[in-house]
Amino acid sequence: SWLYSSPSSLSFRSHTCGELRSDDAGKKVTLCGWVQYLRYTLKATLCNLTPESVIKVTGTVRNRPVGQENKMPTGEIEVLAENVEVFNVCQKLPFEIKDFVKKSESLRMQYRYLDLRSSQMQKNLRLRSQLVMKMREYLCNVHGFVDVETPTLFKRTPGGAKEFVVPSREPGLFYSLPQSPQQFKQLLMVAGVDRYFQIARCYRDEGSKPDRQPEFTQVDIEMSFVDQAGIMSLVEGLLQYSWPAERGPLKAPFQTLTYEEAMRDYGVDKPDTRFNMKLIDLSQIFLSTEIEFLQSALGQPGGSVRAVCVPSGAKLFTGKDLEELKQIAKTQFGQCPLLGHLRLQCAKLLESHGVVVRDPSAFHFLWVVDFPLFLPKEDDPEELESAHHPFTAPVPEDTRLLYTDPHKVRGQHYDLVLNGCEIGGGSIRIHKASEQFYVLKNVLKEDPGLLSHLLEALDSGAPPHGGIALGEGGPILLLYILCHIPASGTLRHLIL
Amino acid sequence: SWLYSSPSSLSFRSHTCGELRSDDAGKKVTLCGWVQYLRYTLKATLCNLTPESVIKVTGTVRNRPVGQENKMPTGEIEVLAENVEVFNVCQKLPFEIKDFVKKSESLRMQYRYLDLRSSQMQKNLRLRSQLVMKMREYLCNVHGFVDVETPTLFKRTPGGAKEFVVPSREPGLFYSLPQSPQQFKQLLMVAGVDRYFQIARCYRDEGSKPDRQPEFTQVDIEMSFVDQAGIMSLVEGLLQYSWPAERGPLKAPFQTLTYEEAMRDYGVDKPDTRFNMKLIDLSQIFLSTEIEFLQSALGQPGGSVRAVCVPSGAKLFTGKDLEELKQIAKTQFGQCPLLGHLRLQCAKLLESHGVVVRDPSAFHFLWVVDFPLFLPKEDDPEELESAHHPFTAPVPEDTRLLYTDPHKVRGQHYDLVLNGCEIGGGSIRIHKASEQFYVLKNVLKEDPGLLSHLLEALDSGAPPHGGIALGEGGPILLLYILCHIPASGTLRHLIL
Repeated sequence: SWLYSSPSSLSFRSHTCGELRSDDAGKKVTLCGWVQYLRYTLKATLCNLTPESVIKVTGTVRNRPVGQENKMPTGEIEVLAENVEVFNVCQKLPFEIKDFVKKSESLRMQYRYLDLRSSQMQKNLRLRSQLVMKMREYLCNVHGFVDVETPTLFKRTPGGAKEFVVPSREPGLFYSLPQSPQQFKQLLMVAGVDRYFQIARCYRDEGSKPDRQPEFTQVDIEMSFVDQAGIMSLVEGLLQYSWPAERGPLKAPFQTLTYEEAMRDYGVDKPDTRFNMKLIDLSQIFLSTEIEFLQSALGQPGGSVRAVCVPSGAKLFTGKDLEELKQIAKTQFGQCPLLGHLRLQCAKLLESHGVVVRDPSAFHFLWVVDFPLFLPKEDDPEELESAHHPFTAPVPEDTRLLYTDPHKVRGQHYDLVLNGCEIGGGSIRIHKASEQFYVLKNVLKEDPGLLSHLLEALDSGAPPHGGIALGEGGPILLLYILCHIPASGTLRHLIL
Repeated sequence: SWLYSSPSSLSFRSHTCGELRSDDAGKKVTLCGWVQYLRYTLKATLCNLTPESVIKVTGTVRNRPVGQENKMPTGEIEVLAENVEVFNVCQKLPFEIKDFVKKSESLRMQYRYLDLRSSQMQKNLRLRSQLVMKMREYLCNVHGFVDVETPTLFKRTPGGAKEFVVPSREPGLFYSLPQSPQQFKQLLMVAGVDRYFQIARCYRDEGSKPDRQPEFTQVDIEMSFVDQAGIMSLVEGLLQYSWPAERGPLKAPFQTLTYEEAMRDYGVDKPDTRFNMKLIDLSQIFLSTEIEFLQSALGQPGGSVRAVCVPSGAKLFTGKDLEELKQIAKTQFGQCPLLGHLRLQCAKLLESHGVVVRDPSAFHFLWVVDFPLFLPKEDDPEELESAHHPFTAPVPEDTRLLYTDPHKVRGQHYDLVLNGCEIGGGSIRIHKASEQFYVLKNVLKEDPGLLSHLLEALDSGAPPHGGIALGEGGPILLLYILCHIPASGTLRHLIL
């Protein structure tokens, strides 16, 4: 009896409402559920019954009269009720629980318990639960990971500007809700846990944005004695294993682009690779141009002239389309992902004219690697800051550059991108205290004292380690895409 | 390759350090780990190597020379190192990572990452992870439960005096960290989720006590169309399924006592049933006593004279022992669980004289049911308050007493007790808005407006439902007992 799922075990019902088929004809059954429609006979017998009331029906399954079958999976049968018990009569509802009834988002939020009763939301909740369960099976049972819960009432991390605080009973002393278990998981590696994972609740106080939430969940992974390729294989296997069967198998390994390639070909570090339309370098053609702003661009170090070639663009794009593209170019000129943005906008415009550019049922997973480890600070380009976080290890062959040309160092950081969305990111971490100290003090000009507990831990026998977080809404984002929630819907629709 | 756990998959190592046996002799292997002891030859070759340094050794497995085998599982073999790579040299440690080295609790807490490196703590972390994973398999895969994450940044619940608050960006507005997902899970039942569970983080701001923590985790379960017996069977199955194999199978169903029986026989609502020594009613014998305080006790309504019969007590108990018992009786006189406390104290005293009273390897699970639904308020015994919480449904045959004699109503509440510790509690909930309204307004004299959202939800088609929380440290407490942590150790030892 341990071996299979029995959704009616231990319940008042003998079967679920969607389970019975014509093979069950003749069986005495008990069903529980919500009234969807009231046929005339039921109305007459139970005169105060309303839709969405909760009832128990005991009766016998029989085939529907010939000609009265319908196309539903249960459409060949009906249950001849012998007894009906009314558990609860539903009072007037703010909206009907029918998938075709459109409700405003604020009404759905206010009556979340009614919104979740819709078939789409029921599917989403179940899909998420199953996806996460499969991920756990893969990590625990296939690869021997240990699920460790880390504290959420913690002390403030240096520079944790977006952290919520929680007043303690000691006046003037506060807990802080961590943005991620980053420090905990590194300490767990020092503790010899070897393979850690956690479906971790994280907190970020950055106000309300449609795709951000104050609390979110990430699949948090860390492993010892592993390199970048090992973590990438692990994640590919994780997604293959937990991928819903009805979506077909996932192919691995995923495509990998270096940061340089991504920027060169797509103008952005999280390209949507479902369509081509790569950037084309026209610098050679314009080498002797007299057009002034092109001359000036080519004159700058690393300057180039690039184009997006839009198939049938000349035929399809209207004057209004071209004006829109020009406006984007003007307002975002000089900002890094402008060309990436223009490429996406061209795709959208083509789609608005009926061309299929991006297959909405395709899943293009992509790794982006070899990011710069440090970037010039926006407000002081002479100084460097971490491109991701100060714990990322340099690419081995670049380690010596740390001490001479830190701006040239590439980090062992990897981003996982799906259809143009970043759904995860991680790195191999620095495991030597001396290297971590040097990065903090000499490259980032930060006070290493603020991270003395981490430095001390690295000096206590830290193994080489690295990890990843499918997060900042990662698994939710994945679900978001799996469920084909309209782009206007906020992520809030998917969690409670 | 999906089918079994491979703790060395994707890793620098080919095997774990404890995995090799004499069958592996001749194999070329790569091992990674922490230096435990330094033999003379290693010391000479790697002169700066210290214990707890992290190394990678490549070499060949061979049988140890005859006579040099030891009793460890790996004691028949050794690895002839061909290459040693030092990943990290360990600096001076605050204490040695050897199980036999005693450390103070505060030092263990300060250097948690070193404390967790001990074999006992490694076992605890892994046991907890496996126990929780088995629980998930049972709930998701065997019984079709849906794992739903509920928010932790929520609004304050009425009467939530022990809730942490989290300031929001809106001046004067605060989030609250919930003490349990009680309201969420009831709303999920109204939402038609049918079977919900969550390994839920909960928060309670009640200062520091050795067995309480500001944040803790509970196995949180709620089910629709179920009765008390159904939830109790579910939990028995859950524990049987997830029970570690090496502890032998658990027998179910567990023993059940009513609250009345527990109080009568053990003097407490969470009795340790590993030993007998039940309370004996001597009221009949003292009916015509002239001892004044006994007369007075028997004169009160429901008054009785009860005794604990301690086998060999007369022989073993010293004058000091008896004095200690008298002191407890004096200081706790008139408090409800005094007799229960005295019974436990007698067991402890017998054990201090070498008598085996409680088998430390035995697990006596016990249900306590039929609690009173309401209790007289301590500060105003004419008024009633909920024995547990206001959402508990009355025992069906007592429902009509709600409106006439509420103090006589028993609730459909059940506590799970293990060896004298409460490790879980739950109830069948009120699912009719009118009944919930009556309890709040007329019995508890509370403002139903504070729970209007719940009342409105119950009126929107709430199914009959109930649940349980193995919590307030429940699964941790279970682990606590499984791991035989000395009673002086705080629960903190078991989580990160």
